Parts: sequence; C-alpha cells; structure tokens
Amino acid sequence: MKTAEAKTIKSGGVTSAQGFQAAGVASGIKSRGEKDLAVVLSDVPAEVAATFTTNLVKAAPVKVSMRHSRNGKIRGVVINSGCANACTGVRGIADAKEMIERAAREFKTKPREWLVCSTGRIGNRLPMAKVRKGIEKAAQKLGADNGAEAAKAIMTTDTRRKEFAMRFKVDGRKVTIGGMAKGAGMIHPNMATMLCVITTDACIDKPTLRACVQEAVEHSFNRISVDGDTSTNDTVIVIANGLSGSNLLKSYHPQFGLFKKTLTHVMRKLARMIVEDGEGITRVVDVVVKGAASAQDARLAALAVAKSELVKTSWAGGDPNWGRILAALGYSGARIREEMVEIFYDGLVAVVNGQPSKTPVAKLRKLVRKPIFTITIHLHSGLGEYSVLTTDLTEEYVQINAGE
Amino acid sequence: MKTAEAKTIKSGGVTSAQGFQAAGVASGIKSRGEKDLAVVLSDVPAEVAATFTTNLVKAAPVKVSMRHSRNGKIRGVVINSGCANACTGVRGIADAKEMIERAAREFKTKPREWLVCSTGRIGNRLPMAKVRKGIEKAAQKLGADNGAEAAKAIMTTDTRRKEFAMRFKVDGRKVTIGGMAKGAGMIHPNMATMLCVITTDACIDKPTLRACVQEAVEHSFNRISVDGDTSTNDTVIVIANGLSGSNLLKSYHPQFGLFKKTLTHVMRKLARMIVEDGEGITRVVDVVVKGAASAQDARLAALAVAKSELVKTSWAGGDPNWGRILAALGYSGARIREEMVEIFYDGLVAVVNGQPSKTPVAKLRKLVRKPIFTITIHLHSGLGEYSVLTTDLTEEYVQINAGE
Repeated sequence: MKTAEAKTIKSGGVTSAQGFQAAGVASGIKSRGEKDLAVVLSDVPAEVAATFTTNLVKAAPVKVSMRHSRNGKIRGVVINSGCANACTGVRGIADAKEMIERAAREFKTKPREWLVCSTGRIGNRLPMAKVRKGIEKAAQKLGADNGAEAAKAIMTTDTRRKEFAMRFKVDGRKVTIGGMAKGAGMIHPNMATMLCVITTDACIDKPTLRACVQEAVEHSFNRISVDGDTSTNDTVIVIANGLSGSNLLKSYHPQFGLFKKTLTHVMRKLARMIVEDGEGITRVVDVVVKGAASAQDARLAALAVAKSELVKTSWAGGDPNWGRILAALGYSGARIREEMVEIFYDGLVAVVNGQPSKTPVAKLRKLVRKPIFTITIHLHSGLGEYSVLTTDLTEEYVQINAGE
Repeated sequence: MKTAEAKTIKSGGVTSAQGFQAAGVASGIKSRGEKDLAVVLSDVPAEVAATFTTNLVKAAPVKVSMRHSRNGKIRGVVINSGCANACTGVRGIADAKEMIERAAREFKTKPREWLVCSTGRIGNRLPMAKVRKGIEKAAQKLGADNGAEAAKAIMTTDTRRKEFAMRFKVDGRKVTIGGMAKGAGMIHPNMATMLCVITTDACIDKPTLRACVQEAVEHSFNRISVDGDTSTNDTVIVIANGLSGSNLLKSYHPQFGLFKKTLTHVMRKLARMIVEDGEGITRVVDVVVKGAASAQDARLAALAVAKSELVKTSWAGGDPNWGRILAALGYSGARIREEMVEIFYDGLVAVVNGQPSKTPVAKLRKLVRKPIFTITIHLHSGLGEYSVLTTDLTEEYVQINAGE
C-alpha cells in the first residue's frame, strides 16, 4: 500500500512532525539499566484521539488515560516499560495519576493535559521512587531529535524499535504524521498488547480526528494476531497540534482523504513491524479471506485460521498443511460449504472444491518455507472480505513466554 | 468422582461387557508396521447413540456414521488410524462406504449395521488395498479378550492406549460399561480430536441412550482442551446390546441414575486420559470457574483461560502468572468485575479483589510446578459454574506439530 502523494521520511518517528519533542531514559524500573521511561511533548496544546484495549481488565494507566483523552486538549504522554501497572487496584490508579502529576510539574503544564501508558508484567506496583527520578531525567533530556530514544524506552520483549513517518502537502504546507509503537507478544485484535503514539502537525478538530483514528485502527492494529491474547494495556494515541498551519482538515477538505489514507498507512506500517518482531516467529503470514457470506463471516474465518495453534505450528515446520486450515474454517463459526472452498499459497492453488489440487506438495512446501507469504481462502459464498496479519508458532515463542 | 455402587474393572475396556468382541491389527496404513485397524463387534444387534464433531468440515466416515447411527440397530464399528479420510470429496465417501461393506461381508452382517471412524492426517485418501486386507485380517483375529489390541490400533500421536470399564448391578444382573478412546492433540470442546467407542450390555432403548450419551459427553469430552482446535473427525459411539438381561433402563427405573452416572464417569475417565496424554504436556490443570453471572459466562471464562497461549506457556515454565489469567478473563466475553475476582491455585489464594494476595510467590511457584493442579476462579457475580480440564503448552507440543 503506497500512498501516492505522501512520502516516507527516512528514520522518521514520533518527533518528525513540527512542534514535538521526546525523551527516552533509563529510570531503573528495568533491572539491567535499559531505557524504560519515555515522554512525548507537544509545544502547544493539541487535539488527541485514542483507542484502548477492549479487555474488561484494564490497567490503571488505561483507566486514567481514557478519562483524560475524552475532552480537552493535551500536551504530552508519559510512558514506562518494565511494569504494566495492571491489577494493582486503587494504589495503581494513584501511581498512574502521580506519574501524570510529576510530568505536568516538570514540563510546567496541567495534569489534565497528560496521558500515561505502562507496559510490562501484570500484577506488580510501579517502583515510584525510580519513576519520579526518571521523569526528572526525561525533562532534562527532552529534544526534537529524540524520537528514537523514546521508541527504545517503550520496548519490552521487542528486539528492535518501531518507528515510521510520512509527509505530504495540504494547502501548500508540509504536514507530517509519524509515530512509534511497541509490541511482540500478547498480540491480538481489539487490541494487541501494544502501545502506539502518533504525532502530527495537521490541523484537525477532535471529532474528525477521532473518526479517522477509529477507522485507521480497524484497518491496522485490529487486524494483526501473534498469539490471540488481548492485553490489559493496549493503547493507540494520536496527537495533532495543528502547527503545520494549513486550513482545518474537515471531511470536505480536498486533502482530507489523503490525511486519512496516510494515517492508516502509518498505522499499518507500525502494525506490520509489530508482527514481524513477533516473539520467536520465523514466518509472517497474511491470511486473506474472500467470498464469505458476509464481512462478519470473513472475519470469523480469517481469525480462526490466524489463531489456530495447529495451523501456526505447521507453518513453523514449513509444512503446507491445508487440512488444518480447512479444519479451522470448519469450526470458525463462519458459514462455509466445504465443497466450495479454494485455498491458495501465494499464487499456488492448494485446495479446489474442498479437496487437494494437483499442485505438487513439494512446490507448496517450498513456498511455506519462505519468511513471508499469503494464504488466500476463497469461500465462494458471497462478497465478504477480511484479512489478518499473523505469524507461525515456534518453540522459541514458548521458551520466551515460559520464562518469568 | 467415585460412583458408589459401580466398581472399576481392572484392565477393563471395550470388550468387558458381555457379547462384545474386538480386534486390532496392522494393515500397513501406518508405515512402520504398527497396528492401525480396529473392529468392535456386538454378538447381537445393539442400540447405538453417537455424537460427532461440530466442525462444518466433517470427514467422510463422520458423514457416513451420522446416517447409520440415526435409526436402527448396529452390529459393529470399523476404525482406522493413520489417515483421517477428511477433505477427500465423493471418493472419500465411497471409501468409507467400502470399509463398511467389507466389514459387513467379513462378519456376515448388513452394511447398514456398521459405523466407521478414521483418524490421522487430513487430505489424503485411504490406501484401500491395505484397508481391505486389514479388515480380512481383523475378522480372523476377533476375540472377546482383544479390547487392548483394538485400543492400540486407534492410536495416532497417543503415547499410551486409553481404556476403562466399570460394573454395577441392575435387577440382580451384572451390567458393564467399558470403552476405549484416542486423542492427544487437536483437542477442544464440541468436540476434541478424539474417537471413543463405549460398549455396554445394559438394556436400554435408543431415545433414552441418546439422552444419556448427550449429557455424559457434555460433562466429559466437551470439557477438555489441549490446543483449542476442533477436529473434523471427532466421534463418540456408545453401543448397548442388552445382553445383561435386566429390565429396560427407562428414566423411572431405580437404577437409571446409576447407569447415567457410571456412563458419565467412564467418559470422564477416558477424557482425562486424553488430556493426560496431551502432546508434549507437562501439566494437567483443572480450570474451575465459580460465581459467574450465568453458566454461559462461566463457560466463556473457563475456556478463555484454558485456551490462552500465554497462560499455558507460563504453566510450562512453572510460573504462577495470575496476571495472564486475569487478562484472559477480561477478554473472555464473560461479564466480570476486576475488583471482585479471586483466584486460587489449589488451596492457595493468589488474587483477592483483583489484586495480588499476601501468599508468597515462592509458595505459588512450587505449586505450579506440580504435574496436576486446580485453578479456581471465583467471579463473585452470580451462581454460574463451569470447569475445563486443560494442559500447559510446551516447546515439545510445537515440535510434535511442526513436523510433517
């Protein structure tokens, strides 16, 4: 997906848009001296739209940020890794609020103008003494070139930082959308265990921004799956400070479509980076369902395949085991007729009319050993379509998650 | 669960009841000369009740057996392992029917009086020349002491055969219920990848037997999960030939409750054996949910925990990671209030009011390293209860299923 008029910014990230600064520091929450505290600050009050985990068990920072993102403008986001501040009760809420108050004091703003995120292990309280010092340190290190530092500080089991930014023109002014994300396990729609902060200097009002963010999330972060577990801390925050100086991007603005498309593209890029960095994975697989009886049937079918342990382990073994895919379709809840199903591995047809095609297994096997491929499933029952980006399931995934 | 008046038969199985014979032979479907074809025969026409996979993709033998079990009495079941005969189209149906015709001819009965089961890899046709010879061979080996041979012949990735039988008295006559099962992976409710054949000499009519089987399956095979994948071939068959000579076991018979209880107990035993033989597992965990807003909420909650890759890998690592359990409850779809949740590991309380208890982590860790334990989750939201027997998820599971 290439947005025609928007260009990728090399090494772009959360500070690529005008008027945004960031910092990433080591506060000592993580034991090995790695960076674990990030701040993103807008020079001026900015509109914000955010989506949060659908998990009924929500971490304290999620509860606080949900309230603060609802109304009014914000100035910044403070994020820690190494501790999720989830299942920590009222004391957890107090800790999340204190993070915001400390940040507000350091940056001479109001607590109401801050959001807070945490990521890491569930059930432990934040080491607040360290967090306080971390925020002080972040205030000193703040800068417009520190996007990469911030992206590093929000990592948990991630093996690399995830940043992306694009730029396009609106009313002759440069508009930038850039962001950072983290996530590698506990990844599943609505939403994945992931955090994402995107900043833009676009001029846009809150309701319009909110609609754009919802749609973009639906087409990006809500369509990836690593292990089928929805976390307690998932958060996507988009901050728009309007410093590009263009006219307001309402739905009737000629460049509104371009803004939406670019925002979606930035989110899709970051979502893909999360999947590609999935814990222990060796394959990234696009599961595309076409011809379902409805969009909901397509979604059920795609998710069942993308989540099946047996399908995912067969990919890890480089085994084109389409029988397991058919079995997953059969229990997905989607309306399927076995004798209509076609399954393709990239361009190669593996199943026709619910039965093996004449494609030699050796050819399919070669394809499934590629690091990236697409499974296209045609149900020939209607017009419903859906796709999910998923991974294989390896022994290494188990190793990573069996450790404490 | 001990049934007061029914006694376990040592080394009992599918031929423990009067008037049942079996055979288990090597027909060459499996390449290494292992047993792969079983026959169970009743000396007289018998009532039958069966439940089959809910997967929309049903293997050919399932389609054939569904028809044959609906009406009329049956004489026997012919089963092969090593090939599932699933996703094989009309030719697969023809092969399943031929298995039945061959068995009927060998045993001088009608094809209509036979059921057929297959288990193994999906998408390959049966090697019929071998199957035919196997059925001939089974006819020669048939005997009333061959339950164990048959139980061996239906194994796939199972590491041990699964048999169990019990005996009790009805109207002064001995009544026996005994059976065999197979299954180790692709195990999930409604139903697991499993086959089970149970025989009894009880006198019972078809509608009553059917009702008993449905209830017993709901409390046994539908409450186990190894990997969350529902297979295309799952089948539970119960055959009652009436040779015990007691009065008819209708619902008003004083011993009717005992029959139902014992049938459920036999199924639960066999279901537990399947879980304990789960592919690569090192822990068997009873997930018990209490106090849910409804029975359906309890079911959703228990299944989400029993299926979570993150919860199951943490058990493999001997890590009492109750945070992941809380997260799974949160996305389960069950109505939960975080601040009401209690979680116990056997007798030890780990979570109170949605927050860590004072139980030292070292104690919990020791408990989670046991091969068998119970997680009890109290939601304090109502009276709904449900339990699922599940396992951990290990590197070995991935190894087994990544191979071809």
